[in-house]
Order: sequence, then structure tokens, then C-alpha cells
Amino acid sequence: MASNGNGSLANGASTRGKPIKCKAAVAWGPGEPLAMEEVEVAPPGRLEVRVKLLFTSICHTDLSFLKGERKFPRILGHEAAGVVESVGDGVENLAAGDHVVPIFNGECGACAYCESGKTNLCGTYRVNPFKSTMASDGGTRFSVVDGSGERRPVYHFLNTSTFAEYTVLDAACAVKVHPKAPLDKMCLLSCGISTGVGAAWNTANISTGSTVAVFGLGAVGLAVAEGARLRGAARIIGVDINSEKFTKGKEMGVTDFIDSKACDKRVHEVIREMTDGGVDYSFECTGINDVLREAFLSTHDGWGLTVVLGIHATPKMMPLHPMELFDGRRITGCVFGDFKGKSQLPDIVDKCMNGKLNLNFDGFITHKMPFSDINKALQLLEEGKSLRCVLHL
Amino acid sequence: MASNGNGSLANGASTRGKPIKCKAAVAWGPGEPLAMEEVEVAPPGRLEVRVKLLFTSICHTDLSFLKGERKFPRILGHEAAGVVESVGDGVENLAAGDHVVPIFNGECGACAYCESGKTNLCGTYRVNPFKSTMASDGGTRFSVVDGSGERRPVYHFLNTSTFAEYTVLDAACAVKVHPKAPLDKMCLLSCGISTGVGAAWNTANISTGSTVAVFGLGAVGLAVAEGARLRGAARIIGVDINSEKFTKGKEMGVTDFIDSKACDKRVHEVIREMTDGGVDYSFECTGINDVLREAFLSTHDGWGLTVVLGIHATPKMMPLHPMELFDGRRITGCVFGDFKGKSQLPDIVDKCMNGKLNLNFDGFITHKMPFSDINKALQLLEEGKSLRCVLHL
Repeated sequence: MASNGNGSLANGASTRGKPIKCKAAVAWGPGEPLAMEEVEVAPPGRLEVRVKLLFTSICHTDLSFLKGERKFPRILGHEAAGVVESVGDGVENLAAGDHVVPIFNGECGACAYCESGKTNLCGTYRVNPFKSTMASDGGTRFSVVDGSGERRPVYHFLNTSTFAEYTVLDAACAVKVHPKAPLDKMCLLSCGISTGVGAAWNTANISTGSTVAVFGLGAVGLAVAEGARLRGAARIIGVDINSEKFTKGKEMGVTDFIDSKACDKRVHEVIREMTDGGVDYSFECTGINDVLREAFLSTHDGWGLTVVLGIHATPKMMPLHPMELFDGRRITGCVFGDFKGKSQLPDIVDKCMNGKLNLNFDGFITHKMPFSDINKALQLLEEGKSLRCVLHL
Repeated sequence: MASNGNGSLANGASTRGKPIKCKAAVAWGPGEPLAMEEVEVAPPGRLEVRVKLLFTSICHTDLSFLKGERKFPRILGHEAAGVVESVGDGVENLAAGDHVVPIFNGECGACAYCESGKTNLCGTYRVNPFKSTMASDGGTRFSVVDGSGERRPVYHFLNTSTFAEYTVLDAACAVKVHPKAPLDKMCLLSCGISTGVGAAWNTANISTGSTVAVFGLGAVGLAVAEGARLRGAARIIGVDINSEKFTKGKEMGVTDFIDSKACDKRVHEVIREMTDGGVDYSFECTGINDVLREAFLSTHDGWGLTVVLGIHATPKMMPLHPMELFDGRRITGCVFGDFKGKSQLPDIVDKCMNGKLNLNFDGFITHKMPFSDINKALQLLEEGKSLRCVLHL
């Protein structure tokens, strides 16, 4: 955590309360390249903050929504870091100049869910793929002049919309981090790293010496491996159809690799043989139902736990039989690594800063580019050539 | 726990090491009435015990196996209580004269599973519906002379085979209980009560003031309610297609009743309305897939837990979508209430004896009959007219 990539920071004194014109990469239609447009960003409403974004990175979820989502025009992006430019009425825990990481799964801290101590799904600001406007008034804070010369609203995305120089967030979706934390790395806490590491730490609560299988070695899968490594797992088996991913995997703690395309038996059988009956924990990071079944069966009967992280777009139900639950294997979902973002992430950042936690951010960053190259960065991710490309704004 | 229904007890001095001829209710073929036969019960083998059974009760699983199972002749029955007549070589924790309750899900105490502290599924003696012989030598301890005059083996059932005056058990499947505990009640610990109460205490770990829904108010469902009541659940909602079951349910702690046949909306919607978003815990005790889905959806998002207890005979997979796991609802199976039988049940019995635990055994016993009336007892259960009929041998 030596470098500080923050660059020059925003000073919101002159812009507070006024609309800001800035650049944003706008999605106009399914599958179209993002268009770099001048958008107007309204001042933050009640319980909202306006943030000058300094870095954003790209996740597969952005790609999926670009291809399939029908709500256009829209500003995608949900991994980023920046500086609060100004805050709206009623915001108490953030101020202009604070360094923040947007989170798609917010935490109001006051609802029955947040107060339950049992979930990180906030009643108001939890992740909601169908939401495209602000919670406070149902409006958007972005607008753009379209081809016909008319100003029209631009929709929000996953509580974040980070493919823009400025964005407006609910304060519940902005995590204040240590002012010296390098924001070019911190942006990975918005989604990929937090989800994977948190799945290992919070959802599975991996114990020292245990065995782990990770299905799908993209950024989330590797973040699971990183979390497992930091918990002292004895064995971390990576499974992927692309054997090239093992090279990167080894850097991130993966100890064994299974090329599922090259197996002459089912992957769960291979894993059970390798581990005397199955791993203690498996993680499904592919979104493929057949893989989910292999992940489930690859755990040890009696106590195995499968954590589902992949986005399953299929309408098909889980390929698990109720009686299979009686073998003592468990399965659970996990959103945002079961982290309560605002409560827990600042401490993670502090520990990284003071050396108590050696989270390998750099291992995930395979590319760095200017924001203007965003379509190139999207293509690299789609082709499986990048883990995370960090764009500087 | 005032009465002691034990009657006269066995003294194995004269029979030790010799075969015993006694009565047993033998299943000769699918759906046929049980035939009261004279069977020969061999002495216990290594790590086995021979038990003189004093009481046995009947569970739906006996009925299901009688109808469907192809392994005949067989002695069914898995809820009982009796006295050890003699022990085989190597048995250290049991002796002739001990009062015992057979358990279908054994506990050797020494395998990797038993030592893990994470499961009650013993590596050797766990429940296994396909097992019909003894673990030590693959043989049977019962034999009978069939219609043609030939002596043939009679198969075992669920590690127990309690529809007989004497049975042979693996020592891992015999729980020693307090010598003054009333065995006519203790027999219910073999399956129904332990499964339901344990699901509430061990699997769900129900907390005081929480809300519970129980789908299916048979003996296991009512035992869940009993467990929830003893844990101080604020609300215990019973769901059944038979509204007459609510009368009995109320005795056992059920506070609200939903007649699922009379609902004009889906049961989970009714429950969510009743409980401000869903119950904390639901229990599926019917073995019906559609009910499983209702049970799952009836819990509160964020933290709801569904425990599956019903035997799902359908080949169909669970009707749950992987993405539904992301709402924070969990589902898990439960065998024998997650009790480690030999380690934990004696303490439960002691607490019942000294008044520290007020487990309502009598509430479950709706009928008492002599062993010779076993077919009548089976019919009562099949017709839904009994919860538990205790047969005295």
C-alpha cells in the first residue's frame, strides 16, 4: 500500500448547490459501445452526496447489463473511488473532501435489517438490479442532450453509476475510507475484492487448515482464493475451463488447479479424491447451474458449505434434490461478501494501511488506462484478457 | 415424568451367548399386513448388543418402507425402548441391564465425522435406508422359518428393527438412558421427538421471541412446535391441510393455524402478512416439493432459515432458483434433529427426570396397544388418526 494514486482532489466550494457539467460514458442501447458525452449532474438531494470520481474499474456485471438491460440511456459502472464534492441535506456522516468508495449494496444503519445484526441487506439501499432512479424522489441526477437536441434524464445503475467524472450517491452507498488510502486500488473494494474476500471471511468463515474449492477464476473467484489464503486455508483448489488462469491463480493463493474441460470424470469426483472426501468449502463464481451442482457435491458430506456468488441468469431451478440436503452439505448465497459496507470496510482499509492485512490489490489490477479508453477496457474483460482494468478519470 | 411404565425387565444371564426365540412382526412383502412370527435372534456380534424391547411406536417411515421397500422378509420399526440383554465383544459403554433407546442414526464416537464436532452423521452408523444387514459382518441376526419350512434370514431396518421382542443393535445405535426413565415415553426419543425438537434447538437454534412456521402437523411437526415453545418462540404458526390438527397443535404450543386448503392466496404470502415480512424459521415436515417452496418463501428475507425434515420421495429437484439465495434466505437439511444421539440424549432424559425440561411426551401418545395389535396401529397412523401409538411388548 505504498503508492498513493489519488492525484489532485476535488474542491467543491465553487460547485456546491449547482449542476456540474462533466464527461460520462453513456450507454444508449443494448450492446452499443459507450458514448463519451457531456452530462449534467444535479446537486445531491436529501441524504445524498455528489462525488468526484477519480478511478473506476469494470466488472462483468457492467458488461451483462450493457448487453441485456432495457433502461437507456444509462450510466453503468459500480467499482470506483473518489472524493465527496458536496453533500445534500441530512447527511451526517460524510462531508466535502472525504475520500469514498461507492457500494452497490448500501447500508443506512437504521432500518430493521441494518439493526438486526443478521444481514447486510439494507431495507432501503440493498442491491437492486431493477432500480434506475434515486430512492429519495424517484428521479435521476444525470441528464444529457440527446441527438434531437432535447435534454433527457440518464438512468442510474446499481446505486452507483461510476462511469462518469461525477456521480450522485445515496450517503448509505458511500463508504468513507482513510484519506491516504490509494484510491486507484480502493476502487476494487466496491465489488470484486469485497465480494470474494468477504465470502471467504464472513459467509464461509474459513478456518485455518481447511480445504477450499473455487469454481471460476475471474476476479471474484481469485478474491475468494485471496480471502482463503489470508485465513490460512491448507489447500485452495481452483477450477476453470481456461488453464491459463492457473498462472494468475498461483499468485493469489490457489494451490491446485483442475481444468474441468480436461477431466475424464466429474469435477466433484476429482475433488473428493484429492481431498479425502471433499473440501470444507466451495465457491460457485460462474453463474452456471451445472457448475453449481459440481460445487455443491465437491464439499465433504457432514459439514461442507457451498457459497453461491455467480449471477445465474437461467430460469432453471437449482439442480439439487431436497434429499441431498440430508447428507449435511449446505448451500447459501452471498451478496457483497456479507460485508456491511459502511460499518466494516473502513476497518479493512485501515488494516491494509497499517500493514496488519496484506490484501493483494495489485494482483487484481492487470491493466490501467485513461477513462476515454473505456470501450477498449470493456472488450478486454469480455475477451477474458483482463481481471480488472482501472480507468483514471 | 411421574409414571414408570417399564414393567418387568430382562435378565440376560440365562440367554447370553445363545439364540433367543421370540415374537416379531415380520414384513413379508410390500403392503402386506405384518405377520406375527416366531423369529430366532442370534447373540450380538462384535460391538453389538442384544436388547429386549419393552415398547415400540410407529412412524410414517415404517409405513413408507412397508409399502415400497423390496428387501423382504424384514423387521421394520425404529422407535423403541428396552433393556440390554447381553453385549457382544468389544462393547465398553453398555452392559446387560442397561436401559436403552435405539437410534437409527448411530454414533461410534471415534470416526472422523464423530470427532469433527460438525455433524451427527457417523461415518459407519449414520442413517442408511438401503442398509439391511449388520455393519460388522454384513449378516443378519434374525431368522425365520418360512412357509416352505426353510430357515431364512430376516433383514434389518434403519439400524434398529424394533417390531420384535428382541433385536440386535450396533452399540453405536443404542443410547443408555436413566434407569428410572419411563420407557413407554422414552421410545419417542428414537425418532419423532428428537428429530423435531432437535431441529428447533440444534439446527435452527431458535431464539426467544422469534417467529416460527411449521408445515405439516404430524408428530415431527408438533415436536418442532414443542421445541420452539420450549425455546420461548413468540409465535408458532402451524400449516396443514387438515384443520382438525390445530386442536392438538394448540396443546403443543402452536399459536396460529393456517388451513392451506382454505387460503385464497399462497401460504407464504399469508405468513408474510401475519409476521411483518416473514418468520425467522420455517420447518418443512411434509416431504412435498411445493410445500418446501412455500416454507422457504415464508421466512423473512435477510435472515430466514428453512429446515427440511420431510422425506421427499419425488425425483424432482428443489423448486428454488439460485438467485433466490441472494435474498438472504437459507435452507438446510436436518437428520435426527442434529442430535448426536449417544452424546446428547442421555442429558435430555436426565433433565426431563429432574424437572429441568418439561418435554410433553404425553402429548404425542394418542394410543396405547399391545404389540399384537400392530397392524391396527399402522392403520390408525395411515388414516391420520394417531400421532404416536405406543405398543407394549
